[in-house]
Amino acid sequence: MTDWNAAAAEALAAVRERRVLVHSITNYVVMNTTANVLLAVGASPVMAHAREEVEEMSAIAAAVVLNIGTLSPAWVDAMRLAGAAANRRGIPVILDPVGAGATTYRTSTARSLAQELEIAVIRGNASEILSVSGLAAATMGVDAAHDVGEAARVGAELATRLGTTVAITGEVDLVTDGETALEVRAGHRLMGRVTGTGCAATVLIAAFCAVDANPVAAAAGALACFGIAGERAAERAHGPGSFQVALYDSLASIQPTDLHTAARIRKVSP
Amino acid sequence: MTDWNAAAAEALAAVRERRVLVHSITNYVVMNTTANVLLAVGASPVMAHAREEVEEMSAIAAAVVLNIGTLSPAWVDAMRLAGAAANRRGIPVILDPVGAGATTYRTSTARSLAQELEIAVIRGNASEILSVSGLAAATMGVDAAHDVGEAARVGAELATRLGTTVAITGEVDLVTDGETALEVRAGHRLMGRVTGTGCAATVLIAAFCAVDANPVAAAAGALACFGIAGERAAERAHGPGSFQVALYDSLASIQPTDLHTAARIRKVSP
Amino acid sequence: MTDWNAAAAEALAAVRERRVLVHSITNYVVMNTTANVLLAVGASPVMAHAREEVEEMSAIAAAVVLNIGTLSPAWVDAMRLAGAAANRRGIPVILDPVGAGATTYRTSTARSLAQELEIAVIRGNASEILSVSGLAAATMGVDAAHDVGEAARVGAELATRLGTTVAITGEVDLVTDGETALEVRAGHRLMGRVTGTGCAATVLIAAFCAVDANPVAAAAGALACFGIAGERAAERAHGPGSFQVALYDSLASIQPTDLHTAARIRKVSP
Repeated sequence: MTDWNAAAAEALAAVRERRVLVHSITNYVVMNTTANVLLAVGASPVMAHAREEVEEMSAIAAAVVLNIGTLSPAWVDAMRLAGAAANRRGIPVILDPVGAGATTYRTSTARSLAQELEIAVIRGNASEILSVSGLAAATMGVDAAHDVGEAARVGAELATRLGTTVAITGEVDLVTDGETALEVRAGHRLMGRVTGTGCAATVLIAAFCAVDANPVAAAAGALACFGIAGERAAERAHGPGSFQVALYDSLASIQPTDLHTAARIRKVSP
Repeated sequence: MTDWNAAAAEALAAVRERRVLVHSITNYVVMNTTANVLLAVGASPVMAHAREEVEEMSAIAAAVVLNIGTLSPAWVDAMRLAGAAANRRGIPVILDPVGAGATTYRTSTARSLAQELEIAVIRGNASEILSVSGLAAATMGVDAAHDVGEAARVGAELATRLGTTVAITGEVDLVTDGETALEVRAGHRLMGRVTGTGCAATVLIAAFCAVDANPVAAAAGALACFGIAGERAAERAHGPGSFQVALYDSLASIQPTDLHTAARIRKVSP
Repeated sequence: MTDWNAAAAEALAAVRERRVLVHSITNYVVMNTTANVLLAVGASPVMAHAREEVEEMSAIAAAVVLNIGTLSPAWVDAMRLAGAAANRRGIPVILDPVGAGATTYRTSTARSLAQELEIAVIRGNASEILSVSGLAAATMGVDAAHDVGEAARVGAELATRLGTTVAITGEVDLVTDGETALEVRAGHRLMGRVTGTGCAATVLIAAFCAVDANPVAAAAGALACFGIAGERAAERAHGPGSFQVALYDSLASIQPTDLHTAARIRKVSP
């Protein structure tokens, strides 16, 4: 039986030891934040979006993040090139379908990237994930916090349909590849008062996927790490500003053993 | 007789209750800052600039911000599309003519946006507002801090000429639609040592305009809220870095009653 | 004999007195950070990248920064226009070849900018500078921290080859124009845990170049100022997040006399 919390601890140690390089093609709003989150946790960020260099940059990275938060046609082209280059080299590609469901362009772009590329993990909130999946609007109300069993069932259907691992983040996070489902109970409500915390979770998932070949374990480990860091940050925060500062500090000080002993990852019974 | 400070308090409460969604097409430098300012105060930010989605995104927002701080032709096109969509739906459009007067391109873009679109509020410093208005250089020295009566006179002329509400920010802020002029005395000199505080004032004005149909009241209320939060932040700051952090915290903790009792908004006699 | 530390003190005082305006065409990741670094130290930032206005914007600036961290063809075109405009006016142009060596596109762009424009200072780490110079891979291991004499020799060759001043930053910074070589011993390891500190050093070099006609003195002075501010920030930091906040505060509070008495700049014997 896999000890998912021990695996998370090992992954964090490996991210730091290898200083894994994560290449992000992401939205303008969170570029600085996600770069600092990677540096804080002990990984390395790089950003490049020109057709002239994205394939070469992906070739030196350990993982690639595609985030559609401020998408435009030229950037989506670059995402396709970088994703295909990463697929050819066998390095993990993580997709963050920011705002899927809000506009037709976002939804269709997220869907086509998910179909054309081999994606290791798609990370989004329940609404974004459902939009990418194309499941009927009737299921839109799902929220892992309210009914983990139901979320696990829907998440598994999405993962199978999309042929990937799905990480649905919310009050409780759910990670599933259609066969194994893990829930992560960690985090703090202040994380919703700072822009880019979802996108930051995504780059941490990418870093963990670079060192752990099991995307379900890697995604759950990254979310546990981020959530615990958030809880610690909240203890020293007076509001969203000081929370963000403390979050970077916590990501730098959190230790692998903390992930193991906190034991926030749990298998969801099918 | 309107109690402008009571109106400001009500607007802040409404912004939080409705978690108003502000769609910004803005400059790269302040995207993260303005998103965090909106989240801190209790509103919601969204950014999108592709022709493929700006109209649809504006259609789900409660207010639209157009900020020309790092403009380029494709982004200005997107501003026109988003602004026109917002006008069709009757939601407020706020214009921030960053750097108008510095280059011909900025000045002409700001002017054409102001003329083509129905703008609820234009927010800028005295120099930017005068550049948009096309008033003679002889009037360029106006500064609301030195002669509020004179600023009110010039501001009113601009508002009438542009058919909008004008918010001239400086040591003292002046808001006028050509008939009613309000001054706001709040803020701290450290606000000038952090990039994007002017742009942050603009997105707060947008949030307040989404819940208050009177643009003069909304703009003055937002500026009072921002200024008071700045004063409180300065009490805990050791310099511009800790000031910015404390500013987010203050925007999250400030209460509607604080705006009412501080009473920083005052009608300027004609 | 020049007192380099006294010169640094004078330059810092002049940057503040003139509030020098630095026009940056830079990468998206660090725009906010570098703008805040300039404001914190007492200078003024402006960013503009549209062909329609870069020449006019450079014409009102006191220095121009070209940073290729998230380059694309349209932005490189803008860098050429802005750089040429600055050259015609005789204001200093500072080049930051971020990631040169990582992709062919970055390396070739950095080289062509260095050749086509008159660059006052190129600032990068040893690897980036060597990539721009086209020196053989055999020399890639140079690190000023390990052998300052050897770094000075290689740096001087690069400066002569490129006809400019080269600032190689690392554990020890080295500045040379091929004749005079200065080393700067200042800084803290936390600077490597925050994104954009290299880019921030570059904009400070630009600000110092705007007030000191000797690029070697200006670059060394800016690096001493930044490094000492970093050391002071580290004293109050609990990790990378609080370090960045304290860094802005330190840049605002550091005094010219601090640079003089700290005496971190030293001439390297040929």
